[in-house]
Amino acid sequence: MALKKKPVNGMKDILPAEMAVRMYVIGLIRETYDAFGFSSIETPAVEHIGNLLSKQGGENEKLIFKILKRGEKLDLSQPTTEDAVTDSGLRYDLTLPLSRYYANHANELPSPFKALQIGSVWRADRPQRGRYRQFTQCDIDILGDPTYLAEIELILATTTVLGKLDFHNFTIRINDRKILKGMAAKAGFAESDYDKVFIILDKMDKIGLEGVRAELLESYPEEIVTPYLAQFEEGADPAALMEGSPLPQIISTVEATKTADFKVKFDPTLVRGMSYYTGPIFEIAMDEFGGSVGGGGRYDEMIGKFTGQQTPAVGFSIGFERIIMLLLERGFKVPGAREKIAFLVEKKMPDERLTEVFEEAQKERAQGKAVAISIMKKNKKFQKDQLAAEGYTEIREFFAK
Amino acid sequence: MALKKKPVNGMKDILPAEMAVRMYVIGLIRETYDAFGFSSIETPAVEHIGNLLSKQGGENEKLIFKILKRGEKLDLSQPTTEDAVTDSGLRYDLTLPLSRYYANHANELPSPFKALQIGSVWRADRPQRGRYRQFTQCDIDILGDPTYLAEIELILATTTVLGKLDFHNFTIRINDRKILKGMAAKAGFAESDYDKVFIILDKMDKIGLEGVRAELLESYPEEIVTPYLAQFEEGADPAALMEGSPLPQIISTVEATKTADFKVKFDPTLVRGMSYYTGPIFEIAMDEFGGSVGGGGRYDEMIGKFTGQQTPAVGFSIGFERIIMLLLERGFKVPGAREKIAFLVEKKMPDERLTEVFEEAQKERAQGKAVAISIMKKNKKFQKDQLAAEGYTEIREFFAK
Repeated sequence: MALKKKPVNGMKDILPAEMAVRMYVIGLIRETYDAFGFSSIETPAVEHIGNLLSKQGGENEKLIFKILKRGEKLDLSQPTTEDAVTDSGLRYDLTLPLSRYYANHANELPSPFKALQIGSVWRADRPQRGRYRQFTQCDIDILGDPTYLAEIELILATTTVLGKLDFHNFTIRINDRKILKGMAAKAGFAESDYDKVFIILDKMDKIGLEGVRAELLESYPEEIVTPYLAQFEEGADPAALMEGSPLPQIISTVEATKTADFKVKFDPTLVRGMSYYTGPIFEIAMDEFGGSVGGGGRYDEMIGKFTGQQTPAVGFSIGFERIIMLLLERGFKVPGAREKIAFLVEKKMPDERLTEVFEEAQKERAQGKAVAISIMKKNKKFQKDQLAAEGYTEIREFFAK
Repeated sequence: MALKKKPVNGMKDILPAEMAVRMYVIGLIRETYDAFGFSSIETPAVEHIGNLLSKQGGENEKLIFKILKRGEKLDLSQPTTEDAVTDSGLRYDLTLPLSRYYANHANELPSPFKALQIGSVWRADRPQRGRYRQFTQCDIDILGDPTYLAEIELILATTTVLGKLDFHNFTIRINDRKILKGMAAKAGFAESDYDKVFIILDKMDKIGLEGVRAELLESYPEEIVTPYLAQFEEGADPAALMEGSPLPQIISTVEATKTADFKVKFDPTLVRGMSYYTGPIFEIAMDEFGGSVGGGGRYDEMIGKFTGQQTPAVGFSIGFERIIMLLLERGFKVPGAREKIAFLVEKKMPDERLTEVFEEAQKERAQGKAVAISIMKKNKKFQKDQLAAEGYTEIREFFAK
């Protein structure tokens, strides 16, 4: 009968203090994105297993929590396979469900459609510090807008949230898959090698230009590698690299109208993992966090592959869990929290007197205060200390008289 | 490659209009319960299969979405069983995870602990109109308070939410499992028969006193059934039935301090399904909805069974999905929604001009308005009609000049 007390491996319970920060940030995100015309939507946590395994999820498809068929559909009396015993699984991101959602409801939705999703996703990753198997993603996507107005809106909206949370001096790194490909083509790489080349290029931050060169030379001849890397070296002309791309317009408009304290920086080495990106890609870099705290890009071909109807799309995912972690580390206090009053009531209170206590509590609540009523304990000092630690700034005691 | 467009069987996508109502109600619930001193918490959607199957969930245990083991732990090469291939499942309610959470974290939590949980639960129920296999539950629980102050707090908090949502003239039906048992004992039923008797009594609403009598007589002698039912008949003295129970105090205090338009009514036929209840039980009845829109009760023994440490507990679950359904049927409009302005921008706008457009948008947003910027389409009339239908009350057009 004894219950396992810990959460399942790699998942976590959220305590009140962290939860208060999470709820505040979610509220701020919804409010901010609302001002940019995004509409909240929701899809089920459970998706068709066929959709999840449709090769859009990259490595994440190996990390799916699969759900067992039920009733007559499940046959375990013979040797069988995973495919035969599962019909669904937990979503590993919010982009795939969004594609399905849009395919299902396009007729009921405006065009362009600006979607906001905040929800849990699940990945059976190797558990490690600060990474959990259930975590919250927070995505905005604009579907049906082929122009770079969409990229500008996404970057302005996301950075406005970060600014309101008092993040400063961060960088939006921006690149374009078309520039990436153009540079690889110019050097002479075959198109079939691009993905492999970009995976190596993506390590520039960690191993530097010489590290990238060494790795490329393991698979490709110097006549290609040297002119390729020359394009990234100091002195390369960003304007020339960006020619024909919408990046200059995106950068200049964002810089001119931003509300937060950040820079947009063209970075021709930015790759972003997912191969489904087709145009501009971007990532939030913060010095206080050694890595990305969000990113996204244009993926004009993904929805069409699913629905048969070409639909331009671009999305930006804020690294919700990382933002929360940074705020908690910083000792973030939720602004505008209610004043908290604890009412301690002596045991065996006559009915009329108890009614008075609740009347007083209701009055305080009506005036915006939080009131918690509980019985006075024998160890009143301990009880009061505990309440003070919980943020109760006033304690009122009530006796039978 | 084609994607299945519909959600998995029995689950649903939530469109923006419903989502706006859901988000508003969730915000109102959090705000109201906050004023009563409840703290938001969260547990993972996935629970240990052993916990889920620990016999606290009644019939719900038959409806679990079970999750397949992964990697080496999964062996399908031999005939096997469900137990052998699953290690976890989706939670079917929020009460069981709360027990585990409390067992895991009691040392870090205040006593009494007032918890608010809003989250999805999953049940592989037969799909039917208006009932889904993933739905939101919204529970408040007070752990560690053995006194009826907790019941009063729960009822006041829950009814305050309903009042703020403009529900009127509803009823909180209240009973006490101790009264239920006392009445059965007095008539001469054996304790082992109580659950069966109460299941029949619970049908009073549907089949009436004579129906209940007929069903009881199928299994029990008239010498027991007749005096048993006489206690429920017109003219039975409620005060006598409630003697020794805290119900009179709960009812009088709630009636004296309530903020919403409802009645608390002692109903000795109220049973509530779950056998884990040990004291007062309650349910929200609304004429406009033929059934319960929420309920709860005291369950002082459940947490102790899991943790080995006796912990009094009482909870109230608001029927979130039913509340949303009633609001949508009523054509509920979210109060305080932003004024929405659509900016339509001519294609091929020079950079400086585009910057002006975004500057204007940012100004409007800073003043609390929602602005969505998009490219002017060829069929501008259709585009404008669509925007109007989406609630955009102003449309501004921008040309290259």
